[in-house]
Amino acid sequence: MLNTGAKDCIFCQILQGGYPISEVYSDDVCVGLMTVEPVNAGHAMVIPRKHLPYLSDLPPDLAGHLFKVAQKIAAAIKHSDIPCDGINMFVADGEAAGQEVFHFHLHIYPRIEGDGFGFKYDKRHFNKPPRKELDRLAGLIRQKLTR
Amino acid sequence: MLNTGAKDCIFCQILQGGYPISEVYSDDVCVGLMTVEPVNAGHAMVIPRKHLPYLSDLPPDLAGHLFKVAQKIAAAIKHSDIPCDGINMFVADGEAAGQEVFHFHLHIYPRIEGDGFGFKYDKRHFNKPPRKELDRLAGLIRQKLTR
Repeated sequence: MLNTGAKDCIFCQILQGGYPISEVYSDDVCVGLMTVEPVNAGHAMVIPRKHLPYLSDLPPDLAGHLFKVAQKIAAAIKHSDIPCDGINMFVADGEAAGQEVFHFHLHIYPRIEGDGFGFKYDKRHFNKPPRKELDRLAGLIRQKLTR
Repeated sequence: MLNTGAKDCIFCQILQGGYPISEVYSDDVCVGLMTVEPVNAGHAMVIPRKHLPYLSDLPPDLAGHLFKVAQKIAAAIKHSDIPCDGINMFVADGEAAGQEVFHFHLHIYPRIEGDGFGFKYDKRHFNKPPRKELDRLAGLIRQKLTR
C-alpha cells in the first residue's frame, strides 16, 4: 500500500524545495512542472500546492482551475519549439487507474505522428454494448450524481 | 482529413437529437453521456453543447466547467453499483493525439484491477532526460505561456 501522507509525499517534498524541478507555471494554489519520465519531450504536469491525494479531494473550483492552467500549458507547448502534433491530457485516480504518486496530478503531453505511444485494451473494449445496457449504466450514474 | 464542421459533426448531430444517447448529465453549456466504445462499463464523456473542435477553442471558463462536471461524474461512477477501483480522465486533442471526433470531449472511465487496459510506449519513454534537458524544455514552454 503506497503512502498518501504529506510527510512521505514526493510532490510535497518537491514543493517544499527538497528536490530540483523544472517549473513551467506557478501561482498561489498550483505548480506546473516537467515530469521526469516523459511520454515525449515537453511532458508537463499540474499539481495542487496542497496535499490532495485524489480527484475527489479537490475542491471543485480548484479542479476547474487546474484544468484551465493545463489548457494554458497545452497552448504554450503547441506554440513552443517543442515537436507537437497534438496533445493528450491524462489523470490517473487511484492505484488501479495507474496512479503512482498519491498527490493529484494532471498530465499534459505533446504527441508526435508515429511516436509509438498508445493504448492497449482488453478485447471487451471492442464489444460495443447495446443501447439498453448503456441506458442502464447511465441510470446508475445519474442516481449518484450531485448537482 | 477529417471534417471539423458542425454540419458533419456526429456530436452536434447527437446534441440536435439525431441519434439516441444515454445521458448522465446536462446543463446549459455541456452534456455528459455514455460512449459507445467503452474501455470499461461506465465510460462517460463530457462534451460542450457548442461545436468547439479543439482544446484551444474552449473559453477557459468553459474548460474549467467541463472538468468540474467530469469530477462530479467520476464521483458518481465511484459511488454507483458499476465496478470501479479507480478512474482515468483523458483528452485527445488533435488527430496525432488520437482524436477521432473533432468536437472536444473529455473522457471519464472506471478502471478495474486486472482490466487489461494500459499504455504502450515507445522505448524512449524510459530514457529519463537529464535535468538540464528538462530545464531547457521548461524554458521553451514558459516563453509561450500567457498568464
